[in-house]
Amino acid sequence: MSISHLFKNAPLQLKAILRIVGEEEPIFGPGRLQLLENIEKTGSINQAAKNMGMSYKKAWQMISSMNTQAEKPLITTQTGGNSGGGAVVTDEGHEVMRYYQGLQKRFQAFLEEESKNLHV
Amino acid sequence: MSISHLFKNAPLQLKAILRIVGEEEPIFGPGRLQLLENIEKTGSINQAAKNMGMSYKKAWQMISSMNTQAEKPLITTQTGGNSGGGAVVTDEGHEVMRYYQGLQKRFQAFLEEESKNLHV
Repeated sequence: MSISHLFKNAPLQLKAILRIVGEEEPIFGPGRLQLLENIEKTGSINQAAKNMGMSYKKAWQMISSMNTQAEKPLITTQTGGNSGGGAVVTDEGHEVMRYYQGLQKRFQAFLEEESKNLHV
Repeated sequence: MSISHLFKNAPLQLKAILRIVGEEEPIFGPGRLQLLENIEKTGSINQAAKNMGMSYKKAWQMISSMNTQAEKPLITTQTGGNSGGGAVVTDEGHEVMRYYQGLQKRFQAFLEEESKNLHV
């Protein structure tokens, strides 16, 4: 079943953002994945935040929220040094990243399959 | 693969909102479905907006956006009368509702299946 014929600006698209949530607050989603990927790449929260056009404060809040909800921190920081301290994605952080990346892939496959139906 | 053991407040949940979008703006999503359901129930945009705790203006904008993007209106209105005019969901409107309800069902099944993996 399709609804494309009902609208002028076909092709229509399906969009969705998938989030993992805990009891009270979000635990993981596309923004946090991107933040961890950028920390992995740059070794710095400050630089990662800049790459994303995000304030350091906002990045720190996201990390703090993840770390507080996790049994073991997903990101650890070292203070001091020339660059104002580095940041490292832990094994647990990598595990969450891999899980979410896999989930996103399966979700993308679902959306692509449904998009076909949408345009039949 | 699961990540539940990495977090304190398990059980984790997956959440997502699925939207149909056109070239520029959203066409349909959970809010618009709810609006159409309420118009069907009450026969009135004003009453539907009230049921949803939404301003008349906002409801009207949503309807206007859908109707402008559709080949034929999803909702038609009659002006005048005691109640300030009625509103009707058209056949095309019903078709979009049915499609989106089906999509939501399949999406829910996907999320439930993935939630099982999440807790393994």
